[in-house]
Amino acid sequence: MDLNAQEKKAGFFQRLKEFPRKLKDGVTKRMKNVKKFGKDDPRRIIHSMKVGVALTLVSLLYYVRALYISFGVTGMWAILTVVVVFEFTVGGTLSKGLNRGFATLIAGALGVGAVHLARFFGHQGEPIVLGILVFSLGGAATFSRFFPRIKHRYDYGALIFILTFSFVAISGYRTDEILIMAYQRLSTILIGGTICILVSIFICPVWAGEDLHKMIANNINKLAKYLEGFESEYFQPEKISKETNSCVREYKSILTSKSTEDTLANLARWEPGHGRFRLRHPWKKYLKIAGLVRQCAFHFEILNGYVLSNDKAPQEFDSKFQEPITIMNREVGEALKAMAKSIKTMSKDSACVNSHIDNSKKAIVNLRIALKSSYPDTEKDLLEIIPGVTMASILIEVVNCVEKISEAVEEFSGLAHFKETLDPKLSAEIGQHQLLHRGSVKPVPDGDNEKEDNSSSSHVLIPVHDEEQPPTATAKNVLGAEKTRVDVV
Amino acid sequence: MDLNAQEKKAGFFQRLKEFPRKLKDGVTKRMKNVKKFGKDDPRRIIHSMKVGVALTLVSLLYYVRALYISFGVTGMWAILTVVVVFEFTVGGTLSKGLNRGFATLIAGALGVGAVHLARFFGHQGEPIVLGILVFSLGGAATFSRFFPRIKHRYDYGALIFILTFSFVAISGYRTDEILIMAYQRLSTILIGGTICILVSIFICPVWAGEDLHKMIANNINKLAKYLEGFESEYFQPEKISKETNSCVREYKSILTSKSTEDTLANLARWEPGHGRFRLRHPWKKYLKIAGLVRQCAFHFEILNGYVLSNDKAPQEFDSKFQEPITIMNREVGEALKAMAKSIKTMSKDSACVNSHIDNSKKAIVNLRIALKSSYPDTEKDLLEIIPGVTMASILIEVVNCVEKISEAVEEFSGLAHFKETLDPKLSAEIGQHQLLHRGSVKPVPDGDNEKEDNSSSSHVLIPVHDEEQPPTATAKNVLGAEKTRVDVV
Repeated sequence: MDLNAQEKKAGFFQRLKEFPRKLKDGVTKRMKNVKKFGKDDPRRIIHSMKVGVALTLVSLLYYVRALYISFGVTGMWAILTVVVVFEFTVGGTLSKGLNRGFATLIAGALGVGAVHLARFFGHQGEPIVLGILVFSLGGAATFSRFFPRIKHRYDYGALIFILTFSFVAISGYRTDEILIMAYQRLSTILIGGTICILVSIFICPVWAGEDLHKMIANNINKLAKYLEGFESEYFQPEKISKETNSCVREYKSILTSKSTEDTLANLARWEPGHGRFRLRHPWKKYLKIAGLVRQCAFHFEILNGYVLSNDKAPQEFDSKFQEPITIMNREVGEALKAMAKSIKTMSKDSACVNSHIDNSKKAIVNLRIALKSSYPDTEKDLLEIIPGVTMASILIEVVNCVEKISEAVEEFSGLAHFKETLDPKLSAEIGQHQLLHRGSVKPVPDGDNEKEDNSSSSHVLIPVHDEEQPPTATAKNVLGAEKTRVDVV
Repeated sequence: MDLNAQEKKAGFFQRLKEFPRKLKDGVTKRMKNVKKFGKDDPRRIIHSMKVGVALTLVSLLYYVRALYISFGVTGMWAILTVVVVFEFTVGGTLSKGLNRGFATLIAGALGVGAVHLARFFGHQGEPIVLGILVFSLGGAATFSRFFPRIKHRYDYGALIFILTFSFVAISGYRTDEILIMAYQRLSTILIGGTICILVSIFICPVWAGEDLHKMIANNINKLAKYLEGFESEYFQPEKISKETNSCVREYKSILTSKSTEDTLANLARWEPGHGRFRLRHPWKKYLKIAGLVRQCAFHFEILNGYVLSNDKAPQEFDSKFQEPITIMNREVGEALKAMAKSIKTMSKDSACVNSHIDNSKKAIVNLRIALKSSYPDTEKDLLEIIPGVTMASILIEVVNCVEKISEAVEEFSGLAHFKETLDPKLSAEIGQHQLLHRGSVKPVPDGDNEKEDNSSSSHVLIPVHDEEQPPTATAKNVLGAEKTRVDVV
């Protein structure tokens, strides 16, 4: 018993001794994490400092005597406005600032009207009338916040409307300087809002629209990465490193990115024209492309089941498929990369995209031939090859998906005024080539694609038409992969 | 010219005459829409009235003389708190109210400390020290809002921290009654927050947890509906009505419901125990089930491509499949319905679920036999049957998906203390049956399932083991549908 107590005591002192070191380690580790988090996206640090700057500016209303004399304690509304309105993106700040400004103006006016109306009912009736008005207008505005249209764009405005109206109407009962109060509140809110908007736009602005634009291009790139990694994952799973694996799985984030995209598109519409984006940039079209991209990612998710499965078709069967599938995936991947690049640089490159898609359709024809030649010898074989057949069939659907994405990107590039990269002279030459060159085409060697992309002329592949099956018809009917309806989710 | 002018004039008067009618029609139509919107979820109307009640209660701080004398104009903080803190769900209100309360307390204390510290630096130094403190603490708190952990649970608290600290520190420069101010602000915020929380909990509460619970059960039901409608959609597309179609497409909402589920689970954790939900209800487990349900919906999305395609396998081939596929889908659908019901009623029913899943595995065996017998006669046939084979292969994956959902529900039902519905005596009997009964089993006739479900004993199907292939092994290896890894997205 005595020994036990001594041991406990020793343990306690040991822990006490170790405590400072442990604390230091913990703090260092945490500090490192915070540093890394800031480095991952330095805009976070800049944003935090911008908030500090805005707060410092607004506090001048208190520190500078001349300003304090004119605004007094109502300066606090300006502080409140800065803290609440300042958002990470310009669109967010503008949306909140404008909502707050206009809602305060309207609700303030209505509030003053309500107070004057209530005064007709005498001192006894005044609080009752005011109470009824606050109850009914507050309730109605709350109800309006449930409507999706209002919720998406004016939710904050409705909140501030309820706030200001209740505030003016209720305090109108106790003060006679209601107009002065409303005026002061409005002017300080305008000051706070203006500071926010100016700091947000003029100090390292973060545009929601640009984020959305980059996000969509990156998502298309993620699809391309999956297709690039697919061959080695499916046919040589033993060679895969962990890094490639995580790179291939990047597409998973697309599966659930809808709400982020919706929010960004919503905020982007509040932003003025900036950089390459005009005022009426077709933000909604991004959501259409994003929906199709997600549809493609759904296909990958199902494919994944077959890729990771241990119960694949026999190797000798799969190996017959390998070549056409590899070509098909590579071409579709190249098409996706070209689209991502076209969006990133905001320059049209449909000739390149279409040629890759046409090549992938040719690969489908070869896949079909390979499938025919691998006609199973026995009944048992038919069952065995089913995973392989399913995989191929879904991959063909992916080609259709990508074709739809390319159509959406094409439409979008027109609406968003992408610049033309193709020399008109060259384009005429391609037309001639198309007439002359009817036969098979050697696929582009798979090399450093980024480099190739830089010289667009070297990259223009000639779409080649098969005499018997024109490429559009080819892709749609091969293997029963009729163009299916893809709903934008 | 003169005639033209006359015509224009007549047209103008015509429009002027029609205007009141058109206005009336427009208003009536809009009113009807609003009414319908309220009827769709009457809780919206109730919530709006609750906000009105809370506003009326808080305005008593102004109307009642005794209260006004003690709080004065700081009563406005109470109004502000009510408007900002009152949320649709109890969890939302509690999360905002507690965040606001604690953040105000901490930031108020720090603010008072900052003012006292700054006074050491004299009248010249005071605003500089205060400015530095506001800048750095405001920036740090803003930065902390980017960390996912803080963002999810304490985002509002961080905002209020910045607000209160800036507010107290800045106005401390101009007033000496800083402690009184901080006290008044805290007490009025507590009054406003308490009113919100009480109204939210005691007048027709809307629990985020209950919404999440119902949502998951409904989503599982939506999966069942798709499988129910699948047969007629695929095999008799000409018979489909528009209504069935929209019912079958309900699963689409699951594809993008992740953010709603995350939000609800987040809010549910703030709620106290209520009704059937204890305080430490395993809310996170809902997200696991929801992820698996979504995975299943991804499969449907791909299946859809084959269902809506005009390029199906030839009818005589598909018809060989029809029976086992119909049985498989029905059994899986029944299993899903049983799970949804088990979640809704919070009672264990795994025997029923498992028996349906086992039946669907038996159907997979039959599907395999049907596939063997439909061995293609020519090479051309092999290409033609590919859409049908792919469809069957994906459906088998769906069975695996549903098995995973059932495992997750089983685990969850233990953690959430679902009540046992099965009489222990009956369960012993089943054990005996299992030993005796080794052979084929007649599938349950497809009838009014809701009715059948009510008497659980009539519903207990006896899992039957195939002599040659034990059911677990069967389901996993048939058609190469090895249990695949399903990532919770």
